[in-house]
Amino acid sequence: MINRICIVGVGLIGGSLARALKSAGACKEIVGTSRNRQHLQTAKDLNVIDRLETSLSAAVKDADIVVVAVPVGAMEAVITSLATCLSEKTVLTDVGSTKCSVIEAVENAFGQVPTNFVPAHPIAGTEKTGVEAAVDDLYKGRRVIITPVESTSRDAIAQIQSMWEQVGAEVTQMTATHHDEVLAATSHLPHLLAYSLVDTLSHMDEKTEIFKYAAGGFRDFTRIASSDPTMWHDICLANADAMLAVLEKFSGDLKILERAIRDKDSQCLLDVFQRAKKSRDTFCNE
Amino acid sequence: MINRICIVGVGLIGGSLARALKSAGACKEIVGTSRNRQHLQTAKDLNVIDRLETSLSAAVKDADIVVVAVPVGAMEAVITSLATCLSEKTVLTDVGSTKCSVIEAVENAFGQVPTNFVPAHPIAGTEKTGVEAAVDDLYKGRRVIITPVESTSRDAIAQIQSMWEQVGAEVTQMTATHHDEVLAATSHLPHLLAYSLVDTLSHMDEKTEIFKYAAGGFRDFTRIASSDPTMWHDICLANADAMLAVLEKFSGDLKILERAIRDKDSQCLLDVFQRAKKSRDTFCNE
Repeated sequence: MINRICIVGVGLIGGSLARALKSAGACKEIVGTSRNRQHLQTAKDLNVIDRLETSLSAAVKDADIVVVAVPVGAMEAVITSLATCLSEKTVLTDVGSTKCSVIEAVENAFGQVPTNFVPAHPIAGTEKTGVEAAVDDLYKGRRVIITPVESTSRDAIAQIQSMWEQVGAEVTQMTATHHDEVLAATSHLPHLLAYSLVDTLSHMDEKTEIFKYAAGGFRDFTRIASSDPTMWHDICLANADAMLAVLEKFSGDLKILERAIRDKDSQCLLDVFQRAKKSRDTFCNE
Repeated sequence: MINRICIVGVGLIGGSLARALKSAGACKEIVGTSRNRQHLQTAKDLNVIDRLETSLSAAVKDADIVVVAVPVGAMEAVITSLATCLSEKTVLTDVGSTKCSVIEAVENAFGQVPTNFVPAHPIAGTEKTGVEAAVDDLYKGRRVIITPVESTSRDAIAQIQSMWEQVGAEVTQMTATHHDEVLAATSHLPHLLAYSLVDTLSHMDEKTEIFKYAAGGFRDFTRIASSDPTMWHDICLANADAMLAVLEKFSGDLKILERAIRDKDSQCLLDVFQRAKKSRDTFCNE
């Protein structure tokens, strides 16, 4: 059993990890800290954390593991502060949706990437935010990607892998660059498209009518546009290179479909739609 | 109570209407016809229709209402055949997702748009197809848009409106052109984007991994890419003008976001994401 875990940023992701660890009996004490005193108090009141600390250095003291679960845009500031107060015995990890940017921030703050830093990303979440939405089964059956650098300690990786496995997640490893490419394609670009489409429609003259006649398919398609705007702004900028690369591919392919509609190129449309249906039915079998 | 309704094409949409009419006790006899003998037999075996007719002229004989519920791409052929055998006393209606194209087909087949033709579109459906998926509550609380032309008989409109209201739908009217613009934005474009994105991703080198790490948001976002490819091919071509117009708007707005990511224009990204979230939360309140 882990003696003490400190969670920095107790929102949906950090709070759900805390709840899951407690529910699994995986940790003796969970300490929470946050820049927002009120969120932190809510986390304590809801019994998501055992102890709250408003000072980062007090919070991380004697922790076996420190999990940075703040939004991607706040990572750099938190990591910079951690560099001044983290014991070498503590394993540091994060839950950021982009990994190259976090590793870079750690390198900048610590001078080099510490061997006991394990970059990680649990692929879970909903369009909700905040500790009130935290649940103890958020990670059950979900994937966590660990993106170590060459110097990352095997023992530190094993500790973080074990932590996630104890809350029901399936852990895999890949490079940070590869992670950022894969997530740009499956998560970051879809969010950008959903936000963009809803914004386009909300500028049309028939705005009210447009949404009035939106059926179930539209609701599913645009659900992710109800996600936290600041969080996704952070992610788009933190993963800009991979985003731009996949966006360019997508825009090029969309141009081909546009041309096919204009030229009444039946075969092209059918080919794309059939291939897409087949891929989705195969990979997202529900 | 309606004496006899003939449904041409007994798939998800036509079959669900038949089930709903029977369940509401709104019609004495439902006759089904289809080019596909096997589908038709299934509809009869499942008790979705009371009687099957393989000949179109036999099927529509003495019907009070004929509902054409074939895919958009098959509309023209069916309507052309109907022009040779439909009694002037019968009210003709359809369920096509595009309305200008259907009205044009009717005009071509009949010489002019008959006063007893009521173009209609129930905004309902799932990514499933076929009479096996037909349910009696598909239209409950859903919207049906009627797009009459100037000469359409008020009595015919009233009959079709009443038919849809008896199965629980809320009926509104607008012009066919306006309908096609609204649906291009809220339904046809989202389908095109979902198909296009899934196809783009399935061409990437990391194909298997891409989909392996796709989380819940991606599944919702791409659910409509599991829809029937032929049906959506038909719709894209039948509603080409409105599709191209809204696609151009969308592509232009997406370019702005692409530039914002490239230029690290935080404010632009935040503005779009915040506006989109606000619109969606307001209009798709769930």
